[in-house]
Amino acid sequence: MSKTSGDNISDSIKVSDKVLNLQKDAWFLFTSVASPDAVNLGQGFPDDPPSDHIKEIVARAISEPECNQYAPPKGRLHARQTLANTFGPLFNRTLDPETEIIVTAGASEGLTDLFAAFLDHGDHAILIEPFYDQYVANITMNGGVPIYVPLRPTGDPTQNISSREWKIDIDELRSKITKKTKLIVFNNPHNPTGKVFSREEMMEIGKIAQEFNLLVISDEYDRYCYAPDVFERFATLPEMWERTITVGDSGKTFGTTGWCVGWLIGPKYLIAAALNAHTRIVFCVNSPLQEAIAILLDEINHKEYFDQKISEYSSKREKLMFALSSIGIPYTIPQGSYFILANTSKIQIPLDYEFPEDFINKPRDFKFCYWLAKEIGIIAIPPSEFYSQKHKYLVENFVRFAFCKSDETLELAAKALIMLKPYIKKC
Amino acid sequence: MSKTSGDNISDSIKVSDKVLNLQKDAWFLFTSVASPDAVNLGQGFPDDPPSDHIKEIVARAISEPECNQYAPPKGRLHARQTLANTFGPLFNRTLDPETEIIVTAGASEGLTDLFAAFLDHGDHAILIEPFYDQYVANITMNGGVPIYVPLRPTGDPTQNISSREWKIDIDELRSKITKKTKLIVFNNPHNPTGKVFSREEMMEIGKIAQEFNLLVISDEYDRYCYAPDVFERFATLPEMWERTITVGDSGKTFGTTGWCVGWLIGPKYLIAAALNAHTRIVFCVNSPLQEAIAILLDEINHKEYFDQKISEYSSKREKLMFALSSIGIPYTIPQGSYFILANTSKIQIPLDYEFPEDFINKPRDFKFCYWLAKEIGIIAIPPSEFYSQKHKYLVENFVRFAFCKSDETLELAAKALIMLKPYIKKC
Repeated sequence: MSKTSGDNISDSIKVSDKVLNLQKDAWFLFTSVASPDAVNLGQGFPDDPPSDHIKEIVARAISEPECNQYAPPKGRLHARQTLANTFGPLFNRTLDPETEIIVTAGASEGLTDLFAAFLDHGDHAILIEPFYDQYVANITMNGGVPIYVPLRPTGDPTQNISSREWKIDIDELRSKITKKTKLIVFNNPHNPTGKVFSREEMMEIGKIAQEFNLLVISDEYDRYCYAPDVFERFATLPEMWERTITVGDSGKTFGTTGWCVGWLIGPKYLIAAALNAHTRIVFCVNSPLQEAIAILLDEINHKEYFDQKISEYSSKREKLMFALSSIGIPYTIPQGSYFILANTSKIQIPLDYEFPEDFINKPRDFKFCYWLAKEIGIIAIPPSEFYSQKHKYLVENFVRFAFCKSDETLELAAKALIMLKPYIKKC
Repeated sequence: MSKTSGDNISDSIKVSDKVLNLQKDAWFLFTSVASPDAVNLGQGFPDDPPSDHIKEIVARAISEPECNQYAPPKGRLHARQTLANTFGPLFNRTLDPETEIIVTAGASEGLTDLFAAFLDHGDHAILIEPFYDQYVANITMNGGVPIYVPLRPTGDPTQNISSREWKIDIDELRSKITKKTKLIVFNNPHNPTGKVFSREEMMEIGKIAQEFNLLVISDEYDRYCYAPDVFERFATLPEMWERTITVGDSGKTFGTTGWCVGWLIGPKYLIAAALNAHTRIVFCVNSPLQEAIAILLDEINHKEYFDQKISEYSSKREKLMFALSSIGIPYTIPQGSYFILANTSKIQIPLDYEFPEDFINKPRDFKFCYWLAKEIGIIAIPPSEFYSQKHKYLVENFVRFAFCKSDETLELAAKALIMLKPYIKKC
């Protein structure tokens, strides 16, 4: 009984296998490496200050006594009603706020709910690579097995390509389906490629879901799209409503990623199961900010708001593309999202550059991001983080930049990128 | 391929066993039964409006651009620092904000993290009855097995008793420990009995935890205590810091149960495991309200604030006790929390009263709460919800009233309680 430090018994109170085996998330790795005045194009959050209007709406929400107390587990009625009003037309149907919508603690918690609600031990879940890394953890924590189907870049790697040229092989997807397959996770517009799946591609995926009776989790947390009329919601495809749950989040829409107000939308019997999980995972979602989101959704003219946002983000996209083109770095032109995958094959990291031990066995994109953060002062994300071990090689020459940043940040980024010039190989 | 409604395939996309078997939570059951002007003494949230000061602090937090974007998974540094400053003295140690504290999406999500982080399939978790019903769901969702040890009311049931008279049998607890036992969940001050465990009782539990190498989850989400110097934190007992994680929440402290800002505090190696789970369950916690809590914790004089709150809640406790005494209903005098368990044995529900089908096989306290909500207009909670099947009979003559309500609500409750008089049996 002489133990005084937790470290002494650290192997006696055992951590559960499901958590022990989780990979560390890479999101903060490069922030800690870079100097404080590095340009952060890493995590996808806007760095503009909140508008006075947003502040006023939060003040309104906080003034309501009941907005400061527990919300019902499924979400405040006002929030569910405005979500039904907003998304009904986008899903081409009337949405029932009582049974077809849940407010979640951000898209992340919504995803957690779904994997808990639908995966039994040994069930397979199909992930299209590159994927949001949380999917893998959520699947394994719930006893499931992730099965990977990659998007592969096609086209000339020395030139700019369209995000359309990141292709899924439908026969490969089909070959991965077994009796154990339970669900497909689909993300559209796709992070980090910026791909907006074509109706044809989605119909192919839907056909497989129908044939093998799979649940489709359609992660549509971000809906910025620069190619008009390309983006379609998976749940609106024929026969797909009944087997699809759509995951959404308000953070990207209103530039408030820290508010953690998301939602799940789907048919009653699937939402009921998700609600069971949700109620036991967080009980309810922060009440004032879900009210604020309800007020915001109520008052905006949806089309006008998005047209304006998309025009704003198009201009940011142009700025970053121009900066990359200026120094001769090819990239994927994104049709959606607010990320650009740049192709770094032409950039030569000094051969004698010393990496910390953690990075020595990592794919090239990790090393590149380390060097970029440390020496060039730009924080970016290595996309191989979002591929399985077997397929990481596909993107080891890419790097993800977020352009959902203030114009000032993007100008600083353009300046910093020029410092890459001496490292660009002449072809 | 002619299916058009989700209902048709509701048994083909199967819900996971872990969620399918979850019980419905009882929190909203009686709210939906009662008329809108019923007096709500059910859920434990205050119904006072937020102060101007709270509104001003939220406005300040929302004005900071970075407070509107993703917080780090472990929580905003400011929040962790103020939690360390606040709780360090209460734990008699210096707390490291980097490694010993996580900000969670309320106590509920903190609990979810812990069961995910520490339970492997088949592990046993000891619950002291009555328990917060989420514990059971979280344990079974993570493959664990809840093992129950009841608190039993002692003393004369026709008289008021002290919450001290709800007793745990330590030999019974010891008899339930096997090689599979992984952890004990301990809640203090205890909901719904209002019991504040004595140091002696806690030492006995701690001895068992030490002997069998168990993790202790100490749920101290509420720290109102009306008996000075009785409440001690489990982690401060000799040898206990290294095996205890304390769960807390800001909702009860600041009357903001809807903000969903909680925390976990414990030794580095346990917190690291909890953080792994937390990062994958919600990624991060709403940023503006954790900043607001940090500002609040920074500025209050802790002792003064709690002395004032406890005096305020003592007066509310007196009001409800007086109302119950006035009509001759005995109850448990709570030393802590803001609940009173009233003993309803003397109250005769009309023999021919018709209950909905759902209630017919429920214990008497469920029927009582239904009748009370519908006919008397008071919403309360049946405590058998917080006992295992085997032990529900122990509390079927009790009902839980929350007194953390405005004086106006408590006056309305007192008036409504008088309507019980005709139903009280003469002894």
